[in-house]
Amino acid sequence: MNFKMIRYLLSVFLLIEGVLLLLPMGVSLIYSESITPFLITAVLLFAISIPFVCIKPKNIKFYTKEGFVTVAAGWILLSLFGALPFVISGAIPNFIDALFETVSGFTTTGSTILREIESLPKGILFWRSFTHWIGGMGVLVFILAILPSAGGETNYLMRAEVPGPQKGKLVPKMKQTALILYGIYFVLTTIQVIALCLCGLPLYDALVTSFATAGTGGFSVLNDSIAGYNNPAAEWVIAIFMMIFGINFNIYFFILIKKFKEAFKSEELRCYLAICLTATLLIAINIAKSFSGLESCIRTAFFQVTSIISTTGFVTLNYDLWPTFSKMLLLVLTLIGACAGSTAGGLKISRVIILMKTMGREIKHILRPRSINVVKLDGEAIPDETVRNATSHFALHVTVLIGSALLISVDGFDFETTFTAVLTCISNVGPGLGAVGPVGNFADFSAFSKIVLSLTMLVGRLEIIPMLILFSPFAWRKH
Amino acid sequence: MNFKMIRYLLSVFLLIEGVLLLLPMGVSLIYSESITPFLITAVLLFAISIPFVCIKPKNIKFYTKEGFVTVAAGWILLSLFGALPFVISGAIPNFIDALFETVSGFTTTGSTILREIESLPKGILFWRSFTHWIGGMGVLVFILAILPSAGGETNYLMRAEVPGPQKGKLVPKMKQTALILYGIYFVLTTIQVIALCLCGLPLYDALVTSFATAGTGGFSVLNDSIAGYNNPAAEWVIAIFMMIFGINFNIYFFILIKKFKEAFKSEELRCYLAICLTATLLIAINIAKSFSGLESCIRTAFFQVTSIISTTGFVTLNYDLWPTFSKMLLLVLTLIGACAGSTAGGLKISRVIILMKTMGREIKHILRPRSINVVKLDGEAIPDETVRNATSHFALHVTVLIGSALLISVDGFDFETTFTAVLTCISNVGPGLGAVGPVGNFADFSAFSKIVLSLTMLVGRLEIIPMLILFSPFAWRKH
Repeated sequence: MNFKMIRYLLSVFLLIEGVLLLLPMGVSLIYSESITPFLITAVLLFAISIPFVCIKPKNIKFYTKEGFVTVAAGWILLSLFGALPFVISGAIPNFIDALFETVSGFTTTGSTILREIESLPKGILFWRSFTHWIGGMGVLVFILAILPSAGGETNYLMRAEVPGPQKGKLVPKMKQTALILYGIYFVLTTIQVIALCLCGLPLYDALVTSFATAGTGGFSVLNDSIAGYNNPAAEWVIAIFMMIFGINFNIYFFILIKKFKEAFKSEELRCYLAICLTATLLIAINIAKSFSGLESCIRTAFFQVTSIISTTGFVTLNYDLWPTFSKMLLLVLTLIGACAGSTAGGLKISRVIILMKTMGREIKHILRPRSINVVKLDGEAIPDETVRNATSHFALHVTVLIGSALLISVDGFDFETTFTAVLTCISNVGPGLGAVGPVGNFADFSAFSKIVLSLTMLVGRLEIIPMLILFSPFAWRKH
Repeated sequence: MNFKMIRYLLSVFLLIEGVLLLLPMGVSLIYSESITPFLITAVLLFAISIPFVCIKPKNIKFYTKEGFVTVAAGWILLSLFGALPFVISGAIPNFIDALFETVSGFTTTGSTILREIESLPKGILFWRSFTHWIGGMGVLVFILAILPSAGGETNYLMRAEVPGPQKGKLVPKMKQTALILYGIYFVLTTIQVIALCLCGLPLYDALVTSFATAGTGGFSVLNDSIAGYNNPAAEWVIAIFMMIFGINFNIYFFILIKKFKEAFKSEELRCYLAICLTATLLIAINIAKSFSGLESCIRTAFFQVTSIISTTGFVTLNYDLWPTFSKMLLLVLTLIGACAGSTAGGLKISRVIILMKTMGREIKHILRPRSINVVKLDGEAIPDETVRNATSHFALHVTVLIGSALLISVDGFDFETTFTAVLTCISNVGPGLGAVGPVGNFADFSAFSKIVLSLTMLVGRLEIIPMLILFSPFAWRKH
């Protein structure tokens, strides 16, 4: 392990967090609120990070293992410090609660322990929503930029080793990719802010809502989430942007460089859009009788489908009261999630496609043992290793899901609450069903369960492996 | 497709079913009940099967594909005819209900649509429990005898092709293996019958309970299942035999030929026993405060753990009232099931071990990309194909689980009921939670859902692939 390099990178992360805290501090200033919570945290972050940032390590050899450890430890550290403004301001006095809320923010989950949101200071709520936007940036850079040549199957790419000697070559490409991605992310967010302002939302609300949409997070500054605005136009805008932020950012890059054919060749994109439309239609039919107008029925169904599949978790209606079929469908979307290479969580559509095709191949193999069947995506054969990764990722995902559910079941919540709480956390969606449903929250879980769920959110966000490696004794063994 | 051979084999199956029906007919005679339901069904079976059994096909070439189709179609046909006595006797007037009950019997699931059991004729209840025993025999012969050299990973072995020319060589070995297995099955059942009689159960009850235990089915002739006997000694006996029937039958063969070392080398066996003990201990601690005596607490926990992990589904207490942790643990055991090569359902312990080791290998592979990591079971390297089969089986299993849950969710039962109904059916356990819990039943589901759940039971019992192939257009395509 190159500890000096890991320490250096973690310090850079903390320094950036300190700088980013100046933004909510500015919001606090505008609304004449106390800036102390942000000031103390920022100063603390600077004091800790700057001494280490100045010492650039000589040995910059950096392998996958170090990369994973840095990513996992970085996300945990950022959450630990990011929770401080909530605690210092008294908005969330309990540190574990504040940590849960911050992890939920950075992992773009959007599950909350707050029962009452609207009474909190504007600056604090800005920071809360801003963590989603930062988390979204983090995901984009980790999945797409730090890991070379992002494609459909992220997990495979994450494993490509980036050894020291070639680093010099890669850095400029990485930086360029990151800049393009951030550019797309920034422009899309800005367009959403403008669109929401045009719908009549105040600038502050347009901003925080767009942060939560872009990061596919789901924190809202209203107790009733998006339902609180009672603004159908804004609901359409948010629904469409939720769908947009669930699409692989490579697609936007292709559109940007006018390779439209390449963009729409993506099987994942077509499958994603098909799922969105089918699910909207099925749910709209299933819930139709409780609506008087066609538009409101389709809008509500479309909003909830895009909200869940993009793993955002905004709500315009208490869908826990919907028929079981619609709820079950939303849970399936919770599990699947949106496209790889987006800010969304979940299993990812491309991985599900690979899993389905692999199962098909296995059956074909039984029927014709001598035939050679290759799993293809976008017309190209997928390497066997990618297939293996997708299947073992799936097994890991379900194992973590079951393990976490078992752990938090000691709190004694009903099965629906327990299971959907874990499912929504591992997929970084936000709401589940029952006590953690669209009108519920995570406040009543024990401190132990909140820590388990926080780890589950991190495991889901970082696609399991980095967290496993951070906590695996095997990785730390000297060799 | 060698249709003549398939037709021949299916006719043999039906002929055997006709002969087996003579046993419950005898029971009906003893209790002076009407024998008409069995007589009509048996005569019908003989009339249909005997003409085809007499024509032995000349072309006996028989490949895996034909084997799977025969197994799947056979199980469905046996259930269709096996349901007739229930309908004719008026015990279960509705054919779909009777079919559900029969599929539940043959697949050794034990889920019931009956609200009132004790008032039914003895002969009918004997047939109901006897289907478990027949189903158990079927599983043993399909998994262990028809498929050559049964080991830990059944699925792998199922795929070994049995081409025509070598059939002559294999048949004697198959017949011998089947006879040994049936011998063990028969002897174990007999010991249980004697043990239960010694505990004070009437011979009839000892017989039907042993049938349901041996097949890991779970149908009981009492409304309150095993709780109805109020007989602690019998509960211990049944619990121990449930555990015994969840063990790979190869182990008993090894013990029989005095290869004790080989028997206890089995990782699957040790893992199975460890899970049984750990789960019993955890649940006993979790439910301790509602018991006055230590023995009754441990007995209840041990009984329920062995009942669920062996996928039998007998009940001595309404565990739906237990703390969420215990219920969640029972659901995890429902998913896992017992050892491969036993009469139990579920994912099977050996497959779970392979999955866990594969995940471990993937992580090791990331940390040391150049190292070669082999997945081992019982000290021997597992071929890559077995690993691939285990992972894709798991993905298929979860996919079927989710798909069936989505289909039956249209009935509008709560999430807990919907999810656990499908889980218990695919694992062939019997009871779930909520409306299908230990004191509930499947009566209130719609006919559509009962058919879906029947297919789910069959899919689970036949390890998915045969059912998929039967319904796959690809398999039927000429080539």
